[in-house]
Amino acid sequence: MSSGKPAVVLLSGGLDSTTTLAIAKERGFELYALSFRYGQRHAVELEAASRVAAAFGVKRREVVDIDLRVFGGSALTDDIDVPHLSHGEAPRTGAIPVTYVPARNTIFLSFALGFAETIGSTDIFLGVNALDYSGYPDCRPEYLRAYEEVANLATKAAVEDGGRLSIHAPLIAMSKAQIIAAGMALGVDYAMTHSCYDPDENGRACRSCDSCYLRAKGFSELGLADPALG
Amino acid sequence: MSSGKPAVVLLSGGLDSTTTLAIAKERGFELYALSFRYGQRHAVELEAASRVAAAFGVKRREVVDIDLRVFGGSALTDDIDVPHLSHGEAPRTGAIPVTYVPARNTIFLSFALGFAETIGSTDIFLGVNALDYSGYPDCRPEYLRAYEEVANLATKAAVEDGGRLSIHAPLIAMSKAQIIAAGMALGVDYAMTHSCYDPDENGRACRSCDSCYLRAKGFSELGLADPALG
Repeated sequence: MSSGKPAVVLLSGGLDSTTTLAIAKERGFELYALSFRYGQRHAVELEAASRVAAAFGVKRREVVDIDLRVFGGSALTDDIDVPHLSHGEAPRTGAIPVTYVPARNTIFLSFALGFAETIGSTDIFLGVNALDYSGYPDCRPEYLRAYEEVANLATKAAVEDGGRLSIHAPLIAMSKAQIIAAGMALGVDYAMTHSCYDPDENGRACRSCDSCYLRAKGFSELGLADPALG
Repeated sequence: MSSGKPAVVLLSGGLDSTTTLAIAKERGFELYALSFRYGQRHAVELEAASRVAAAFGVKRREVVDIDLRVFGGSALTDDIDVPHLSHGEAPRTGAIPVTYVPARNTIFLSFALGFAETIGSTDIFLGVNALDYSGYPDCRPEYLRAYEEVANLATKAAVEDGGRLSIHAPLIAMSKAQIIAAGMALGVDYAMTHSCYDPDENGRACRSCDSCYLRAKGFSELGLADPALG
């Protein structure tokens, strides 16, 4: 077990957040994972997060219930259809996808901040990625820098102890293939992870949403098969 | 009814947020109120918010359930005793009070941001006050400016429409007496509001917590009786 500084890691159980957890561990942090039940259409995501947390010896994991449905407006939480791609088709780039949830990362980071403050941590990790998800405004480096500024003004630790809180986004500039390669070098078993936006009732990936597309592309670029696909 | 621009107002049902709602209305905004059920010890706060929303013709009010107890660490949500003052004693200043909830305003603002994005609003009002609550790090003007920066980087509106989102904190530099005077000039009936941190089982104010102290001082400086006290 690590005896390093505590870090809060946002853990959805997907490929990106799992790799981020592995990176935080490799950097010597003691791991505190935070997951959310936010009206997702599927529970398979949280089950993946649970497996991953156990595999990495996470010291404490919290699952926070939040109701984002009250705001509506996203295919991940509403009745809006998740878009599916035809074979060979690539996701739209530039535009903000319908799977965008209003203020989601801001809400997630705010809970992470509260958790960090409670356990005396000054390090928050999240697996956002500016390349594959250029359509999400809250995945951009300038957004994260601004949030770090807020974190440093918002907390008791920052005021009383002069502690400097850091938001770590180690995947921010990596391609999906680079993320997978980095994770495999750290021993991540991607069979445990779940990325699909629209799995079937047995939790099997649809293989045609944006998230499945990007994941498949990443493994394919490395000449590998996705171990999570049967 | 107002036909102005929509604004999201954080409404706890206390003296400050009620005055803030009145100010937003006076400025011509169409009112959308957001309240939270966050493991408070008492429901009387939400009942006050409901009365106030009705009195001001709020177009839509949402109550979001969030569980801050998972983080612990505050007398407002935990078993920690709310401090009570002896007659004539003033609250401690400077230090962060035990009634501070980690990252609370950051979490509340993040939900307000999601709500604002959903209804197409670029204006968020909150009743924070830098004078009476100098002990809360997330009530300071520099915190709010930093949050505004995050809001402008986080949202679809900011990216796609170039919309500029504003965080309004009209009470930030006012004393409690000034807040009460401003609210009365706008027709606020403070009998509807609730401020106590530690009411009895009938919802009656304790008259000796920091919040009761500041409220009583405000009315007293104006030579008025608090209409919420029987």
